[in-house]
Amino acid sequence: MNATDKQLHANFQNTTAEVDPATTQPFAKSRKVYIEGSRPDIRVPFREISLSDTSAAMGAEKNPPVMVYDTSGPYTDPQVNIDIRNGLSPLRAPWILERDDTEQLDGPSSEFGVQRKNDPQLSAMRFNLTRQPRRAKAGKNVSQMHYARQGIITPEMEYIAIRENQRRENMSELLQTQHKGQDFGASIPKVITPEFVRDEVARGRAIIPMNINHPEIEPMIIGRNFLVKINANIGNSALGSSISEEVEKMVWGTRWGGDTVMDLSTGKNIHETREWIIRNSPVPIGTVPIYQALEKVDGKAEDLTWEIFRDTLIEQAEQGVDYFTIHAGIRLAHIPLTAKRLTGIVSRGGSIMAKWCLAHHQESFLYEHFEDICEIMKAYDVSFSLGDGLRPGSIYDANDEAQFAELKTLGELTQIAWKHDVQCMIEGPGHVPMHLIKENMDLQLEQCGEAPFYTLGPLTTDIAPGYDHITSGIGAAMIGWYGCAMLCYVTPKEHLGLPDKEDVRVGIITYKIAAHAADLAKGHPGAQIRDNALSKARFEFRWEDQFNLGLDPEKAKEFHDETLPQEGAKQAHFCSMCGPHFCSMKITQDVREYAAAQGVSEQEALTKGMQEKAIEFVKKGSEVYQKL
Amino acid sequence: MNATDKQLHANFQNTTAEVDPATTQPFAKSRKVYIEGSRPDIRVPFREISLSDTSAAMGAEKNPPVMVYDTSGPYTDPQVNIDIRNGLSPLRAPWILERDDTEQLDGPSSEFGVQRKNDPQLSAMRFNLTRQPRRAKAGKNVSQMHYARQGIITPEMEYIAIRENQRRENMSELLQTQHKGQDFGASIPKVITPEFVRDEVARGRAIIPMNINHPEIEPMIIGRNFLVKINANIGNSALGSSISEEVEKMVWGTRWGGDTVMDLSTGKNIHETREWIIRNSPVPIGTVPIYQALEKVDGKAEDLTWEIFRDTLIEQAEQGVDYFTIHAGIRLAHIPLTAKRLTGIVSRGGSIMAKWCLAHHQESFLYEHFEDICEIMKAYDVSFSLGDGLRPGSIYDANDEAQFAELKTLGELTQIAWKHDVQCMIEGPGHVPMHLIKENMDLQLEQCGEAPFYTLGPLTTDIAPGYDHITSGIGAAMIGWYGCAMLCYVTPKEHLGLPDKEDVRVGIITYKIAAHAADLAKGHPGAQIRDNALSKARFEFRWEDQFNLGLDPEKAKEFHDETLPQEGAKQAHFCSMCGPHFCSMKITQDVREYAAAQGVSEQEALTKGMQEKAIEFVKKGSEVYQKL
Repeated sequence: MNATDKQLHANFQNTTAEVDPATTQPFAKSRKVYIEGSRPDIRVPFREISLSDTSAAMGAEKNPPVMVYDTSGPYTDPQVNIDIRNGLSPLRAPWILERDDTEQLDGPSSEFGVQRKNDPQLSAMRFNLTRQPRRAKAGKNVSQMHYARQGIITPEMEYIAIRENQRRENMSELLQTQHKGQDFGASIPKVITPEFVRDEVARGRAIIPMNINHPEIEPMIIGRNFLVKINANIGNSALGSSISEEVEKMVWGTRWGGDTVMDLSTGKNIHETREWIIRNSPVPIGTVPIYQALEKVDGKAEDLTWEIFRDTLIEQAEQGVDYFTIHAGIRLAHIPLTAKRLTGIVSRGGSIMAKWCLAHHQESFLYEHFEDICEIMKAYDVSFSLGDGLRPGSIYDANDEAQFAELKTLGELTQIAWKHDVQCMIEGPGHVPMHLIKENMDLQLEQCGEAPFYTLGPLTTDIAPGYDHITSGIGAAMIGWYGCAMLCYVTPKEHLGLPDKEDVRVGIITYKIAAHAADLAKGHPGAQIRDNALSKARFEFRWEDQFNLGLDPEKAKEFHDETLPQEGAKQAHFCSMCGPHFCSMKITQDVREYAAAQGVSEQEALTKGMQEKAIEFVKKGSEVYQKL
Repeated sequence: MNATDKQLHANFQNTTAEVDPATTQPFAKSRKVYIEGSRPDIRVPFREISLSDTSAAMGAEKNPPVMVYDTSGPYTDPQVNIDIRNGLSPLRAPWILERDDTEQLDGPSSEFGVQRKNDPQLSAMRFNLTRQPRRAKAGKNVSQMHYARQGIITPEMEYIAIRENQRRENMSELLQTQHKGQDFGASIPKVITPEFVRDEVARGRAIIPMNINHPEIEPMIIGRNFLVKINANIGNSALGSSISEEVEKMVWGTRWGGDTVMDLSTGKNIHETREWIIRNSPVPIGTVPIYQALEKVDGKAEDLTWEIFRDTLIEQAEQGVDYFTIHAGIRLAHIPLTAKRLTGIVSRGGSIMAKWCLAHHQESFLYEHFEDICEIMKAYDVSFSLGDGLRPGSIYDANDEAQFAELKTLGELTQIAWKHDVQCMIEGPGHVPMHLIKENMDLQLEQCGEAPFYTLGPLTTDIAPGYDHITSGIGAAMIGWYGCAMLCYVTPKEHLGLPDKEDVRVGIITYKIAAHAADLAKGHPGAQIRDNALSKARFEFRWEDQFNLGLDPEKAKEFHDETLPQEGAKQAHFCSMCGPHFCSMKITQDVREYAAAQGVSEQEALTKGMQEKAIEFVKKGSEVYQKL
């Protein structure tokens, strides 16, 4: 064991049972609640945000709690004790077993998996893992798409239906009313039923990324007739982190709202690190297997082979990776189309495959073996995320021949995946000016048979390094509205460096904004409840409620307290921006108080008040700017 | 003199001649250049960013400097010595005098202005101001719109034409090529001529906000056939700042790209503070005169009178304010329309006027005296920014009856302003979900005769306090694309507190992104040059050029250096995000190097290389990931 190995070994040994409690503490006034489905083991988590009452001056109203979609898993449930050396509870295990179409293996069936397992130096890194991988029985297909096409509604589908319905009980009429969105061909029903989920998955319009070897997952769905989702990437450095640190990155991402997490780690112990990320992840984990395959050939793309890649797929599938990015759409003939580009090929996977194709002058082995890959996918229910190896890396290269040639190939591959009942989504750009975004969405829907689109941004300009979460957040919101199903986040460090925790938080919140703005614009039923509740709190000067209903309650409170730190200011009937003399929200309150005093409806009061030349108003009014 | 006054007096006395040099230092590799017009006193400033050569490995190319629009004024010109106690040089003074349609007054003609001037305690605050205000001669109209309608091309118009043309000399074909935008009815010519500027101003489709008492200004234009502009607000606190601190806020805003600055100060010495902001501002200054008028009546809206308001307009016009926000569109009959709103009236000016209307049961004095206001505007060439007092304060209230009733009135007022040849733009929302944004833009163009639209965001969701620069940056980019002429920035502190310097910087950069993304999407000629130059630098691993071409060079460099601080890393042929093994940009370089070695064009090289089964490529290739 060399010094590095020893260090790493020590780090694993020192892994504590818990992630940092600061990362898992529930948000203020939030509690985890579960809604039970048709069987007691379907327990769908929500975050319930309780609100204070409207003050007497504003009408003395009770404000019902707001339920929000919750990606943070059991970490924010104080009732659950988590020991990351044991992993999360495998809530899906009974459902998988009941289907009786899988078998338990004696151990990993990939060469690499076996080799790692038999390395005594690595045994300490396996902690308490005793569960063996499962695989479909011979001739069986265990994908959710396969079940859906047989007409079977799985417990996972029912779980998702409950989860996608934003809870609307006890909401006043005011809070339910909403603008009708414009959905560009999507058709979101008022209530999501399990049957609707099944139908969308059968149709290929949505995927449920959920490996049978990841039973710890809380089922979720990606498709344009559901809430827009976001992905957060985590990339582990090769050395020096303990498992608890690695797990914490994932937990941190889901705390702020990551719906899936892609593990883009490199380095020599990624196999073991990945194992523990998956064992502790309540959300789907995606990977780009070509990265690990490349490491197995010491970074020489031309030395990659189908056999090495295949073994890597099986290795990762048996760990429980839920979706694989596979750059099978980049064909030999596409590469010359990039020659006139300003920024060539900017996808890592794309460049690896381009190099391989050029070096061998052969068609990509991913493309040639696509049906073989499908066989692996359906044995574990791993979903495809078909990589866009030729996505544009600059505004100049947007929507060019190379990009659209690859998209066409991705459409062909989608049909092959569907022939195998394998779930499939399509990755998209990249750098695209606003006026070219819709063309991307429309072409993707057309060419890929409405398979879910999963885009990186797109960035709407190249000129703001350091702010690419914003250049891309604009594009992400727009393409989400147009029909994109999942948005891959971009952090402020994009193009410049590795994101730290704060960058991850900012990137995720930016993308939650984009996804939610898209849900509003599409007219997703219930999406506006949270906006309405927050705006009502704002109008009624319920400061704490305003913070707690926000996507980042801690940041909102921190900003507010910088100017008005006193506890009393949280009941203040003005904010520091305008001060008491210029508070515009007060005037409407004055009108309403006047109405209440008159015992008439507001509308009538205004009319009445004006008819009386507002004498009462003046008499009563004088100083309406209430001071503390 | 009480203690507060003494403190303030001392602060003014202690005002230093310079603003903080850190605020005015030119950006790395940037220098101020001037392009001369038809006469030597038309000298239009640009920031020229010089670039390093492409490395030998990448083709040993010279990269021409990139000229960018520069709002920072003489502060970033090391040749200019600025003493803020004297103010900037009055570059427009000769043009104003030549027109011979104004007269110099003996002093302020407003009652308040006279009172302040005659207060001996304030004399120290006037520093070296000896210039007296000017006003149109009796019967004259000195607005740029008036000249434009007479067919006169003013030096200001020529200046603007030069300024709006992004310089394209020496740009390679690659850097000029761009995507054709989609402009929703705008018609941006390939080259902006002085005649085009005149015509747009005459037509009312653009304004040149430029008071004859603000001769220090560098002329600029707001209209949808020009570059999209942004406004930054500064709000001075009542006490405790020295003049240099107040001026510095304005300089800071223009450093990052504020095209105009609105001074929303309150407090007892705003008259003097405003004076010095204007004297030192190279960009138009806007105000909301009702705020100061309200202070004159001790915050009691019902005590406001036309006379007090009129005196305030004259006071500020004689100081040189370039545009006034006037909430004349909020009529008595509109107020009941807000009764069913979730968040009532959220505009400060709107709520003041609503209160006045209700208390008096009279039509707003701003509406009733609108023609009188026009008379003042044209005597100094102050532009209207017709305030949207009934803009929605929440997604729920977006595009409602109250908002659109006011917009219709603003359209009527626009026609009255134009009858007087007074320049006019229209303020817009606010909080609007994405799918309702375009309706705002379309209705504004239709109802207000294509007068420039000037919007606050709009915010596309209410649920992210602490990140409203982003919720609104999305909406701002979209409405800019649809035709909005100027975007009023929103900082991360919106709804929560007063922005500090860092918030102002983030707010401005976010809005520069939105404006530029809109320019790209509209197909503004030359807008894409900067994107292309930056992307080329990125592709060629010219790190310093990449930073310097960005909107915030300092932030980009800082982020990069966090991960790879070594000086050598700035020449690195990879970035820390992917590392040397996974750098996708290298592959295209390999292809190109191969082509160069073969002495063929890239396209041919690829074909040739593939025909030869890429034997040469493999022989040459082996380890392409160059390590440091």
